[in-house]
Amino acid sequence: MNTNIDSMSVNALRVLSADAVQKANSGHPGLPLGSAAVTYELWAKHMKHNPKNPQWANRDRFVLSAGHGSALLYSLLHMFGYGNLSIEEIKNFRQWGSLTPGHPEYKHTVGVEATTGPLGAGMAMSVGMAMAEAHLAAKFNKENYDVVDHYTYVLGGDGCMMEGISSEAFSLAGTLGLSKLIVFYDSNNISIEGSTDIAFTENVQKRFEAFGFQTLVVEDGNNLEEIGAAIEAAKADKTRPSMITVKTQIGFGCPAKQGKAAAHGEPLGADNVDDMKDCLGWPSKEPFFVPEEVYANYNAIVEKLAGEEEEWNKLFADYSAKYPEMKELWDQYYDENAAEKILDNEDFWTFSDKPDATRNISGALINKLKDLLPNFIGGSADLAPSNKTEMKGAGDFSKEDYAGRNLHFGVRELAMAAIGNGIALHGGLKAYVSTFFVFADYVKPMARLSALMGLPLTYVLTHDSIGVGEDGPTHEPIEQLAMLRAMPNFSVFRPADATETAVAWYYAVSNKTTPTALALTRQNLPKLAGASKEALKGGYVIEDSAKEVPDAILMASGSEVELAIRAKEELAKDGMDVRVVSMPCMDLYEKQSDEYKESVMPKAVRKRVAIEAGADFGWGKYVGLDGAYVTMKGFGASAPANILFEKFGFTVDNVVKTVKSL
Amino acid sequence: MNTNIDSMSVNALRVLSADAVQKANSGHPGLPLGSAAVTYELWAKHMKHNPKNPQWANRDRFVLSAGHGSALLYSLLHMFGYGNLSIEEIKNFRQWGSLTPGHPEYKHTVGVEATTGPLGAGMAMSVGMAMAEAHLAAKFNKENYDVVDHYTYVLGGDGCMMEGISSEAFSLAGTLGLSKLIVFYDSNNISIEGSTDIAFTENVQKRFEAFGFQTLVVEDGNNLEEIGAAIEAAKADKTRPSMITVKTQIGFGCPAKQGKAAAHGEPLGADNVDDMKDCLGWPSKEPFFVPEEVYANYNAIVEKLAGEEEEWNKLFADYSAKYPEMKELWDQYYDENAAEKILDNEDFWTFSDKPDATRNISGALINKLKDLLPNFIGGSADLAPSNKTEMKGAGDFSKEDYAGRNLHFGVRELAMAAIGNGIALHGGLKAYVSTFFVFADYVKPMARLSALMGLPLTYVLTHDSIGVGEDGPTHEPIEQLAMLRAMPNFSVFRPADATETAVAWYYAVSNKTTPTALALTRQNLPKLAGASKEALKGGYVIEDSAKEVPDAILMASGSEVELAIRAKEELAKDGMDVRVVSMPCMDLYEKQSDEYKESVMPKAVRKRVAIEAGADFGWGKYVGLDGAYVTMKGFGASAPANILFEKFGFTVDNVVKTVKSL
Repeated sequence: MNTNIDSMSVNALRVLSADAVQKANSGHPGLPLGSAAVTYELWAKHMKHNPKNPQWANRDRFVLSAGHGSALLYSLLHMFGYGNLSIEEIKNFRQWGSLTPGHPEYKHTVGVEATTGPLGAGMAMSVGMAMAEAHLAAKFNKENYDVVDHYTYVLGGDGCMMEGISSEAFSLAGTLGLSKLIVFYDSNNISIEGSTDIAFTENVQKRFEAFGFQTLVVEDGNNLEEIGAAIEAAKADKTRPSMITVKTQIGFGCPAKQGKAAAHGEPLGADNVDDMKDCLGWPSKEPFFVPEEVYANYNAIVEKLAGEEEEWNKLFADYSAKYPEMKELWDQYYDENAAEKILDNEDFWTFSDKPDATRNISGALINKLKDLLPNFIGGSADLAPSNKTEMKGAGDFSKEDYAGRNLHFGVRELAMAAIGNGIALHGGLKAYVSTFFVFADYVKPMARLSALMGLPLTYVLTHDSIGVGEDGPTHEPIEQLAMLRAMPNFSVFRPADATETAVAWYYAVSNKTTPTALALTRQNLPKLAGASKEALKGGYVIEDSAKEVPDAILMASGSEVELAIRAKEELAKDGMDVRVVSMPCMDLYEKQSDEYKESVMPKAVRKRVAIEAGADFGWGKYVGLDGAYVTMKGFGASAPANILFEKFGFTVDNVVKTVKSL
Repeated sequence: MNTNIDSMSVNALRVLSADAVQKANSGHPGLPLGSAAVTYELWAKHMKHNPKNPQWANRDRFVLSAGHGSALLYSLLHMFGYGNLSIEEIKNFRQWGSLTPGHPEYKHTVGVEATTGPLGAGMAMSVGMAMAEAHLAAKFNKENYDVVDHYTYVLGGDGCMMEGISSEAFSLAGTLGLSKLIVFYDSNNISIEGSTDIAFTENVQKRFEAFGFQTLVVEDGNNLEEIGAAIEAAKADKTRPSMITVKTQIGFGCPAKQGKAAAHGEPLGADNVDDMKDCLGWPSKEPFFVPEEVYANYNAIVEKLAGEEEEWNKLFADYSAKYPEMKELWDQYYDENAAEKILDNEDFWTFSDKPDATRNISGALINKLKDLLPNFIGGSADLAPSNKTEMKGAGDFSKEDYAGRNLHFGVRELAMAAIGNGIALHGGLKAYVSTFFVFADYVKPMARLSALMGLPLTYVLTHDSIGVGEDGPTHEPIEQLAMLRAMPNFSVFRPADATETAVAWYYAVSNKTTPTALALTRQNLPKLAGASKEALKGGYVIEDSAKEVPDAILMASGSEVELAIRAKEELAKDGMDVRVVSMPCMDLYEKQSDEYKESVMPKAVRKRVAIEAGADFGWGKYVGLDGAYVTMKGFGASAPANILFEKFGFTVDNVVKTVKSL
């Protein structure tokens, strides 16, 4: 029997993980068994955290990028006494209503810093967390008062390393010299299809050296001393992020499965779990049994950890006394309601009457928000001059100046979105990211995580239709509106003019639980007389019919609202009295009451035409079986934008003809 | 005046590119000016191609991954006399109906090997081309008869290198030792937001060394000899792919713009074009002027190039005579109609009556297709055991055995899709790629390129709904059906049983111009009595009402068709006579005649309920204003699948209640 308390404490994580997977008859024991030691060493002896206050602003962050290893994370959270993660929850692993779902879910389980599962995502989000830390430290720290000073740890496996998103994110992390980012690479040479040799023989360490990381190796992933020394070496590097390759054996401790692909994603089998307990010298075969002395060891660690926050609380109290203006600023940064008052800020809602592209209007609004929200931070994937996302005079976030608020992501859309999530997860900052709308495709996997986690990250997506023009079909969004609108808990605005653009931005920054995308034009649009804050309802009557029940309803978004209004005028000449509905945000419209929806689009009116320079997909809910569409039927083309709108039928004539055909 | 004919020939590419962009008043002169020399040296002196027969099977492939530099590619194609790319087309750069769209488009312009524009895509597609070459060479070459023996060249810039997709693809290329892949890295240190230093200081060469590439450097990107020597050194390496860093100056030759971000994506300005012509010693300022002797030089090269194909034609004729069975096999590989006869192959359409998961059924069909189509090749992003994509006994494609037909992509979904495109672009092979359906998000940007290029690549996407169960919301597709259905020229099948799965596969492999996705279940489904080849119409009546005009229509796809049928039976007990429509492929249903659609879903029937374990988005077109939905209202959860279906309302009771509520 193994009695060393550290070793027992490591094995407790293995036993709980294996038992949880076995009871659920579903899950991934391989990583928990292989990585139990590295996480115990980290959480018990190096990481600054206070399980009694999981929200402590200056805690070290830990992200399990290999989210399938959730059983390990839950075992850690349980043993360290986080939240209310009782042993019953461990027993309910992967069951309906439990706090222990198949992959870790942010906000669902106390102590989970990020939702992970899609491989590589956690890696990139951790870079965002480290950027947030660096920025806040640069903004708030004063001599002898490092009130923001914590590490970000992330653990991923071969899969995380193969995913392109990690290369994108770590290349940027190296460029930015994020020395407080420490990456654990759980290297076990096994993937689902077998040895990693079949698809992954690259020299990962050398790749990280190329990125500008310090690289370290732990030859024995069960040797706590060796692990501890590597962590301290990583912390000691003050100019580069560190990557620690930890050589482990997948399914360690389970004789029948260790080192094999079969250990990865299925229960070990009851007999194999028993064998594992024998092999580890565990004192009982009773499922979920952990000896009292092991709990006692964890409890003692937790008591010590609480002291770290106490020290920080004192530091922060002194800081607040000495720098009251900084304390005030701090409270502004952490005030989730700060943006609400923008609704009544006259300057924010004042625009020129001149036609302008919504991307330009957005650019002007971003520069207003820069002053209204000191914690507003963001940037583009190397398209700032086109996306109009630069905050003038706000500095560039760089290795030399982490206080800069303009982020330069490079041509890395997917990592950008994940980094945006990481910044939002960190807390204290309000972030936006930006690229061309067609590249919403690239950001989609991470936009989905924004939505799942309920992070109010803003996606500024310009060049929103065939209005792109000469760049042609590779750069012209068609199905992207449908793609994003179909996603739960994600709001897509396609504003028709300046007022609606301001509504979109107001919604985006004042919202607390939903990411927002703004689809913005490259080309100029007129300011519309009927546009108003009613746009906050997602869809509203922008030009009404004279009759209470109109002859027909034209519905449109963005650049096509103007076209709908012009068609209405033309139809009036023929005696048709139509209503124009502007639909800047279908997602919000869906949330309105049936009464409101009936008032905007009465069911009695069956002559309905949807006009949008995108796929018709999704409009059928409003068009019904008797209406028609003026939309794109296929991909775009390369030509000046005005030619494209004409060739693809976005003309008053065609809209009029379509209405009359009903 | 510069009279060296090579130098003049290089400058002709610069002049035409700059003039084209200037006349269009739109486009990207920076890369063409910087990379004119490397492409001229390659195309004129090292690349095996025959402009008189751009379809020659054994030609070297060239992909311009930095697709925004299209003006350079068009200038090359024009000067080398490809297709009908006249000087008029160059003058019509980026105009409606021209052969010279903003980014290169496959099938649109003769000689364009791949549609590019989304950065990094061409890099990854070139890896697919090199894999196709390696595989076909292993299959067909005989001693002294290397009938498949060509290089794949790809040129990309800093943006291509920053995108994660290129890391994914090149890591795999290194693992596979694809020595006939030669990558040009146009390194000019400039990105749109300015110096690459702001976001990209990594050591790119070192990264490629880590991947297992030979790395070479051309210090002067205008020195043809130096470029030529590097290309030959790259060719000489028989075990590793090569990466050649070519140091260039963006906008070279234009004094006002060279070396600046402003050279990248906007016209140089008429005066600057004139200055450039002075600077390059060009003999005339007349736009689009190229001296006769330069055309003569290109023509002479083209004559010589034609000889290479003649030699190969002789070789291939001898080979065909000596190995008639190989010639027969070759013809089978290149027969686009080969799959059509599967429609009448009884074995293909024969299934057990036992309930089974459609992923398993698909796995069995893949193993039938393996024998029916010798050129069938594919694999998964490290999920083959779950996706059921292994072709048993067909070998693993590896450095040691390029004849293997099972591809192992590693955990690299995005590159996998691009590689699939590259294989399809190469010709001779019929490819499929596979991952979990939720990771359709990751493949989307490249699936869009499949659709744009009209490549019949098949996406096998298993674990298609909350049927995923315990893995939880990160792994449960909700909006992915809508995302893919909304895309033009892309067919999404969600089969309800074995017959419909066979229909989906038959459609996928017999189709020539449309990519297909198969969304397949993890869980078992019964074989449905009403399922038939009618599914090829996308939507059809699978269980009819007794009345000609039913009381209501239930429409569903995949696993929910069975539920609809059971609800119909329950409703019959209450005297309601409903029709069940199975909708395995909305995209195909949309292509049917109005008459057919009216016969399936008569407009007179307004009581309509759509049932699908996904977002309702897109069903409104069939449900109309008076119907209802039994669909997912948000993300899924982690629990056993049967519990999830019940909790989220996919029960007979709930469907019945919903129908009755209308």
